[in-house]
Amino acid sequence: MKFAMVIRPDDPGALEIGKRISLFLKNRGHEIVYELETSKALNLKEGVSFSRLSGDVAVVIGGDGTVLHTIRQLEKQIPLIGINRGNVGFLTDLEPDEAEEYLLKIEKGKYNIENRMRLHLLVDDEYVGEALNEAVIVTSRPAKILQFTINIDYVPAERFRADGVLISTPTGSTAYAMSAGGPIVDPWIDGFLLVPLAPYYLSSRPHIISDKRKLRVELDSTKPADLVLDGQYIMELYNGNVVTIQKSREPALFINAGKNFFAKVDSKLKSL
Amino acid sequence: MKFAMVIRPDDPGALEIGKRISLFLKNRGHEIVYELETSKALNLKEGVSFSRLSGDVAVVIGGDGTVLHTIRQLEKQIPLIGINRGNVGFLTDLEPDEAEEYLLKIEKGKYNIENRMRLHLLVDDEYVGEALNEAVIVTSRPAKILQFTINIDYVPAERFRADGVLISTPTGSTAYAMSAGGPIVDPWIDGFLLVPLAPYYLSSRPHIISDKRKLRVELDSTKPADLVLDGQYIMELYNGNVVTIQKSREPALFINAGKNFFAKVDSKLKSL
Amino acid sequence: MKFAMVIRPDDPGALEIGKRISLFLKNRGHEIVYELETSKALNLKEGVSFSRLSGDVAVVIGGDGTVLHTIRQLEKQIPLIGINRGNVGFLTDLEPDEAEEYLLKIEKGKYNIENRMRLHLLVDDEYVGEALNEAVIVTSRPAKILQFTINIDYVPAERFRADGVLISTPTGSTAYAMSAGGPIVDPWIDGFLLVPLAPYYLSSRPHIISDKRKLRVELDSTKPADLVLDGQYIMELYNGNVVTIQKSREPALFINAGKNFFAKVDSKLKSL
Amino acid sequence: MKFAMVIRPDDPGALEIGKRISLFLKNRGHEIVYELETSKALNLKEGVSFSRLSGDVAVVIGGDGTVLHTIRQLEKQIPLIGINRGNVGFLTDLEPDEAEEYLLKIEKGKYNIENRMRLHLLVDDEYVGEALNEAVIVTSRPAKILQFTINIDYVPAERFRADGVLISTPTGSTAYAMSAGGPIVDPWIDGFLLVPLAPYYLSSRPHIISDKRKLRVELDSTKPADLVLDGQYIMELYNGNVVTIQKSREPALFINAGKNFFAKVDSKLKSL
Repeated sequence: MKFAMVIRPDDPGALEIGKRISLFLKNRGHEIVYELETSKALNLKEGVSFSRLSGDVAVVIGGDGTVLHTIRQLEKQIPLIGINRGNVGFLTDLEPDEAEEYLLKIEKGKYNIENRMRLHLLVDDEYVGEALNEAVIVTSRPAKILQFTINIDYVPAERFRADGVLISTPTGSTAYAMSAGGPIVDPWIDGFLLVPLAPYYLSSRPHIISDKRKLRVELDSTKPADLVLDGQYIMELYNGNVVTIQKSREPALFINAGKNFFAKVDSKLKSL
Repeated sequence: MKFAMVIRPDDPGALEIGKRISLFLKNRGHEIVYELETSKALNLKEGVSFSRLSGDVAVVIGGDGTVLHTIRQLEKQIPLIGINRGNVGFLTDLEPDEAEEYLLKIEKGKYNIENRMRLHLLVDDEYVGEALNEAVIVTSRPAKILQFTINIDYVPAERFRADGVLISTPTGSTAYAMSAGGPIVDPWIDGFLLVPLAPYYLSSRPHIISDKRKLRVELDSTKPADLVLDGQYIMELYNGNVVTIQKSREPALFINAGKNFFAKVDSKLKSL
Repeated sequence: MKFAMVIRPDDPGALEIGKRISLFLKNRGHEIVYELETSKALNLKEGVSFSRLSGDVAVVIGGDGTVLHTIRQLEKQIPLIGINRGNVGFLTDLEPDEAEEYLLKIEKGKYNIENRMRLHLLVDDEYVGEALNEAVIVTSRPAKILQFTINIDYVPAERFRADGVLISTPTGSTAYAMSAGGPIVDPWIDGFLLVPLAPYYLSSRPHIISDKRKLRVELDSTKPADLVLDGQYIMELYNGNVVTIQKSREPALFINAGKNFFAKVDSKLKSL
Repeated sequence: MKFAMVIRPDDPGALEIGKRISLFLKNRGHEIVYELETSKALNLKEGVSFSRLSGDVAVVIGGDGTVLHTIRQLEKQIPLIGINRGNVGFLTDLEPDEAEEYLLKIEKGKYNIENRMRLHLLVDDEYVGEALNEAVIVTSRPAKILQFTINIDYVPAERFRADGVLISTPTGSTAYAMSAGGPIVDPWIDGFLLVPLAPYYLSSRPHIISDKRKLRVELDSTKPADLVLDGQYIMELYNGNVVTIQKSREPALFINAGKNFFAKVDSKLKSL
């Protein structure tokens, strides 16, 4: 098989694990392609940029940030398995000491690929990016409240004042959305999670909205806002800008190491 | 057309509206069948019990309780339109003064029927009932905490201590589940909403769980609990009892008066 | 010095610790008086009932329930130090292995006594009891909502519908009040914490109310409620019953083992 | 009597009310001193700057922002009564049509002055300002999480990761603190309300901390933060900066129009 390997380049421990796993895979006759920064950090001669990275399976060693970065950079999604070097690791299914045993299962084809919905974002009908976890629209002036109109199926369904608003995938429900008070959402749910950030009206609650709906968020406020996708700043938004949130046609592809989603989340939350 | 009519029998205002609408429908040549208690309250000679009630459309005049009662009692679900006589009326799409105009649309066949998921509940694998809003398992000793194990897809996914636990449909997300801190869930979402009641662990959050999962709640506690479906007491539960929650094969059939679900919820919440 | 000793009688581990500490204290020349149930569990000949228990310091070995029980039963409060045998132990300042070292400090008089406010409860102006943690008024019919009027300084300040309402001391803010969504309240705060249980209106929030206010809760509901003090059922309440909450003239007396309240709470919460 | 008058200068309706009330007061023989911007907006010749504004009572006509601005600008606090021209008006006790009747009571000396605690803020032991509502320390990079250490009485009592942290007076508990999930705090309570903003750990809860404690918040994060007092940007904070929060020696002086605090808050919240 052909494995693509991405390692958090500034984490010596991750690089050590990467070397160990590389040796293991090569000894078993597999081909490995290294991402460019990874190859430099490992002092290897050859590496390919994310945009040209390919393979049957991508092995990503690092924290949730490394996984998010990989998925964002890949031109074409590859089935991905994460090895956790972070604090919690909602996006990395394996602990380092479980890696080899599980790679043997992958070798034998005993694995499932789970499609994880991503958001496809437009601002005033122009494409601005994808997000695996969430899109956040948040005041760019500290402690200044914004106003939003939420349009659902072309109807102004709700108007609220808040520091911001967050639209998350089910995958993102255990990330920023959780800090903002949202529920845990099963990745099998075909919906968006919308959470107001510090809403002024107490009646403004988290919503789960079917991904078959047309969802638009309009900034209805003379104060500007920042649009942030998966923690990356994208652009400033102004009064009247409309953010359209759609289900991306290219989901992320996660290799499911067979752990129950809810049991995993529960144990990770208790470890916080 | 044949209309089944159900009116909250102890609400004189609702009965007046019922008379007005009956006259309107009869003048237009429609047949009306009255539910038994309704017919008595209107001093009519003939009425049929819920179990034998049938028709093309059921008109229900009252509050959410009247709608819940009707759906629970019907042997076979009929497309239903509610006329609101309650405080808020999440289940009744029409205000009294909108009734006639909308019935003309129904007459012309200009209406959509929306399937609303119901819960099908088993205790230790024996059927105990259906619920349109929610199933609640709650301590039967005041202020005594229980312990629950949530099994998802045959795995003990979470264990928590709480006063109780609530499993709601999307429809029920604006009922008891909301008081307990749950999110608003789009009726188009194919999932269950699970909300712990006053959980002891702060990490116990509301969950949205796909209705394709196998969901079981085990009472793991020497103290007994009450099982309540849509506000109706069903039975007492004891240590080791397992409640299985499934999607019912017989959804409720709501005539959708064309209002946007989220706009409706938002305006009703603001009226509280 | 004279020590009163109370041990959770059905916990063999607690009894072992009690024997060890008794020996330690006796070897240092102190007198020990055993509570009656404790003395039986230790097979001692002499014990005194709670109502006659006295001493310079009470040593209580068990969980929070043992401490609550002791304070409730004592006719006259004694400075108390708890040794934790429970899961969390917000009311027990010492772990078993810290006991002897800290008792040496007590022997030398190097300790502070912290007054912890208790609630003094009246129903329709008749005394019904005291509470160290909280008073809970909760529906006695599962999942049936009640209505309450909160009177503050003889004015109906708020009316809400909920499963119940909880009035807690600062000490109780880390007990049931926390599960119900209340904040952590410093024991130095002279106030009551009022928390609605599963309130129907989203605008019903936890309140911190000065203990100089006159606080009354009226049950405004045809459905009955249970009054529970520190987890002990007291009586059933009916429509129109008024519960008056006052600061008790007899606070509990806790020996403060010198730990920072907030650091202690934080570490206990993280251990949950 | 001598009245100081402050009117929101860009609100024509407020200016009209101000003229009406000025005439009323002058006709009754009272002296009026106008704040400078107010006098310009009314085309009056004489006005005095906030720093030199004095009088027996200040009449402030506008929203909560106008009241906050007045209190911040006054060199020496004057007893203040607000007339509400804003949406909600937690800081303005009178509606415009109640003004004259209540001013007659003030004329007769029939009024109470309520001291409202203000915060006195230091950064690294240098004074930076006062706040009537709250101090907010919030990430200056959108959606980037910070880490804080809360020191209470010289002990690191809690460490959490969050978008920010807010320290509010009781008065501020119905302002930003409420959007962030805090409780309603009686102005008679001698304490600070600390609320984490979108905390990463679910165990991070709102706290009520006695104003007798030494409260310090340390920014423990390589990412910078903004310090904002009552909605006004003050300065940027960096890793290791310590914000000390004390009770100001100069409380705001509010004339209490005799309305029950909790009833007032409840009706204002329901109007939102």
